[in-house]
Amino acid sequence: MNESQGKEHSGWIVYPIGSRPKWPLAVLLGIQQYMTMFGATVLIPFIVGGAMGLPQEQLALLISTIFFTSGICTLIQQSPLGNRLPVIQGGTFAFLGPTFAILGMVAAKGVTGDMPLWQLQIQEVAGAIMIASVVEIVLGYTGVLGYVKRLISPVVIGPTIAMIGLALFNIGAPWMATNWIISLITILALVLYSQVFSHQSKVFLLFPVLLAILTGWLFSLLGTLTGLISPDNAAYLKPDLIFAAPWISFTPMLPFKWGFPSLASSTLWAGVFGMLAGYLASMIESIGDYYACARISEAPVPTERMISRGLGAEGIGCLIAGILQTCNGTTTYSENIGSIGLTRVASRRVIIAGALAMLVIPIVGKFGAVLSTLPKPVVGSMFVGLFGMIASVGLSNLQQVNMNNSRNLFIIGLSFFAGLSVPYQFNPMLSPEAMPIDWSSAGSFIEVLGNIFQAILTTGMAVTAIVGILMDNLLPGATRAERGLEAWEQEASDEAWQEAEAKWAAMKEGEMRPVEL
Amino acid sequence: MNESQGKEHSGWIVYPIGSRPKWPLAVLLGIQQYMTMFGATVLIPFIVGGAMGLPQEQLALLISTIFFTSGICTLIQQSPLGNRLPVIQGGTFAFLGPTFAILGMVAAKGVTGDMPLWQLQIQEVAGAIMIASVVEIVLGYTGVLGYVKRLISPVVIGPTIAMIGLALFNIGAPWMATNWIISLITILALVLYSQVFSHQSKVFLLFPVLLAILTGWLFSLLGTLTGLISPDNAAYLKPDLIFAAPWISFTPMLPFKWGFPSLASSTLWAGVFGMLAGYLASMIESIGDYYACARISEAPVPTERMISRGLGAEGIGCLIAGILQTCNGTTTYSENIGSIGLTRVASRRVIIAGALAMLVIPIVGKFGAVLSTLPKPVVGSMFVGLFGMIASVGLSNLQQVNMNNSRNLFIIGLSFFAGLSVPYQFNPMLSPEAMPIDWSSAGSFIEVLGNIFQAILTTGMAVTAIVGILMDNLLPGATRAERGLEAWEQEASDEAWQEAEAKWAAMKEGEMRPVEL
Repeated sequence: MNESQGKEHSGWIVYPIGSRPKWPLAVLLGIQQYMTMFGATVLIPFIVGGAMGLPQEQLALLISTIFFTSGICTLIQQSPLGNRLPVIQGGTFAFLGPTFAILGMVAAKGVTGDMPLWQLQIQEVAGAIMIASVVEIVLGYTGVLGYVKRLISPVVIGPTIAMIGLALFNIGAPWMATNWIISLITILALVLYSQVFSHQSKVFLLFPVLLAILTGWLFSLLGTLTGLISPDNAAYLKPDLIFAAPWISFTPMLPFKWGFPSLASSTLWAGVFGMLAGYLASMIESIGDYYACARISEAPVPTERMISRGLGAEGIGCLIAGILQTCNGTTTYSENIGSIGLTRVASRRVIIAGALAMLVIPIVGKFGAVLSTLPKPVVGSMFVGLFGMIASVGLSNLQQVNMNNSRNLFIIGLSFFAGLSVPYQFNPMLSPEAMPIDWSSAGSFIEVLGNIFQAILTTGMAVTAIVGILMDNLLPGATRAERGLEAWEQEASDEAWQEAEAKWAAMKEGEMRPVEL
Repeated sequence: MNESQGKEHSGWIVYPIGSRPKWPLAVLLGIQQYMTMFGATVLIPFIVGGAMGLPQEQLALLISTIFFTSGICTLIQQSPLGNRLPVIQGGTFAFLGPTFAILGMVAAKGVTGDMPLWQLQIQEVAGAIMIASVVEIVLGYTGVLGYVKRLISPVVIGPTIAMIGLALFNIGAPWMATNWIISLITILALVLYSQVFSHQSKVFLLFPVLLAILTGWLFSLLGTLTGLISPDNAAYLKPDLIFAAPWISFTPMLPFKWGFPSLASSTLWAGVFGMLAGYLASMIESIGDYYACARISEAPVPTERMISRGLGAEGIGCLIAGILQTCNGTTTYSENIGSIGLTRVASRRVIIAGALAMLVIPIVGKFGAVLSTLPKPVVGSMFVGLFGMIASVGLSNLQQVNMNNSRNLFIIGLSFFAGLSVPYQFNPMLSPEAMPIDWSSAGSFIEVLGNIFQAILTTGMAVTAIVGILMDNLLPGATRAERGLEAWEQEASDEAWQEAEAKWAAMKEGEMRPVEL
């Protein structure tokens, strides 16, 4: 089987990490990447802003701000401060729990003076994120988190990466269900473009995601124009949003645009500790994302140094997010990792082009408004393809593991199942009968620990990773080779990366890697 | 990697399918198998009987009947009528949807005469199951369903088997959560017994599941006796149940014990069509189970003939279940397949011994009553281990697939993700916002089709299988070898089975296969 693989395949990536597609193409490819993250990015300000009762024009500003911040943070990750993997940075669901806790505390405290409640809430949420970011910056750049790598084997990383994709099952089909006709058209387009037409045409080879989104969008437009899609439906396009948007606005770039938080506020500091839970879950997820990204990009395994710098750079990103007041942190987007597998493009230059687009679009308000009409069923259909791709890339790590060893099977199975089952028990967003543990009466220190514990228990890939790491490092019954560690450690070396970088550097600008289709 | 596997492992099964552990050991091993299915089997009559408002003593009879039926059906599957894989037969959740529909129709019709409503409901549910079973018997023994095998490759079967385990995420941790202390003790016992102590002791090697259940049960008993566990908790043992049970009762064996259904009833025939949906989902699941069972037993791949006979035998089992009036059909139990991986015992003789125990236990009422005190957190902890094992055995099929082929990754990922996400949209038991499609106003033919469609959409492994089969058979981009078909088809031959059977037959009674621990 392995020999036949060596003969019959030449991989799937046409633009590897270090390759340089010509700039006009890179910009188009960057916009394609950008669009796969659009849905989730818009969602976070909608959820948080909705909970704060933010006025419409402030919500628009919050959305622009989070996009602008994404662009900056992605560029930092591509700089020598970061890990230079082709990962796009953006908002994270892991911060939602602690954010809601802060919103509640601030509302309970109430406002003095004539500042609206939501403004105080923004100040304190963003303030807590800003202060807590120091922990991630320090843990990252001192190399403490890179140490985690020594505990990880393919037995652990396979199910963990798979869970990054699979755990999002609650936002795949349910989003598609907002309009099944548009959704099925979009997903059929994605399947045809990426798996059939891509064999005939370079355009479909490189742009299956963008073209599938445009197809779904076009049918939504047709449905809206002909009146077949009702204005209540998530596939209906709202042209008034586009007319209302300004042409140019620089406000998203302003630091502390909603005012500097009062450092004497007790709820601010309580919020900082709660936010650490969000940081922990987000850091575990990012480590998993780095492995997923490297694997899907057909690059060597990330080194300890890359993990450390990556998390350090995400810490800086969170600090900036706090200063620009996105009301959210920043982490690696899984959607884009899935998209690399479908578009076969892993080039850093494309990521940088996408990040530049993210800087420009929030400033050109009309452009952002057009994008914000991206229909929910279209985004949901993309998610099914992208999250699925992450899942199977995760599983492909298991090729290095001896799967005829019952100890390995036990660990993989138990950690995998726990990652789906445990959050279902603790996350009220997933299950009607979920029962989060109430720590609030247990004293403040226990409450902080309890909240951190809670954040982990509701994050599928964190549960899988922790259960897997514990069992894989403690249980006997498999050699290092059977755990897949020997082959893997060779791939994770600085030398392996230097070799890969040299190969990429030898590619001419615009040169594609030949793949068998 | 593959070469190293060949050298370093010798598999995990100590008692292969055709081996013959000495009878006393086989009975103990059979009881261990039996206990892993106990939780799910008790659950079905509780759910159905609860919905019918069944009086307590009738519920007890229904429970005994379903166990007795399990024993008979398991024996049929082991006879020349069946596929002779070490699969245990028992009730199926796939029938619950159509069953509830019949309960509703009968209640709406009402009763004439002095028969209680629940009795008429039992007659019609069991009657519909009995009549519809003819379809499965015919489709099975004529070989029509065996044809499905030709559409299946490892690309499809890997995620499909994994989904059999993973889709049950809603009854793992939530059951454990009924008492976390008992659950954590039980799962820790399972991990230690099966992964650590098994290296030192033959008792732990063969009985990790039984001993872990006993450990959890013992701690529940201690908690109950000391008053640490409240009588409201699912881990509390209720001794009065044991005192109330009769010593011996032959009623479970009686056919039509609640009366023969009226064949002139219109709701009966409507129910038959609804029930076909349950049969379809259950048949797809059983095919997946056969593959899972063969793989976890380290046996060759099931042949077309085995699939056909297996489903035919399940049809006969459903007919018997209708006659004995279990109010449920019969299908292959996934729990027991997971258990083979943990206990390393796949012997037919053990399954037969377990089936004989199932025949005796419902008749000796006290014995069944003791078993019925098996605490819910203990069962939940077992599920996490067993369902996880099925998931990873499913994934081990992917070893035969080229996972560096983006077409394979796309199909595996999309079908996998859809299997989790689609049921979450359509199954109200999973999600607070699930929206089943309402077909009832669409005319009776469409309604029948709609209900069948609905049954598939709420069954994760059916969604994964169908999406996978469609894409794997229609999309270009991989050779037969890359899809894992070449190696696989050799393994699925009659010759491969004859060879394996000959090897097993050469083993002496009581002889264990040497495995490296």
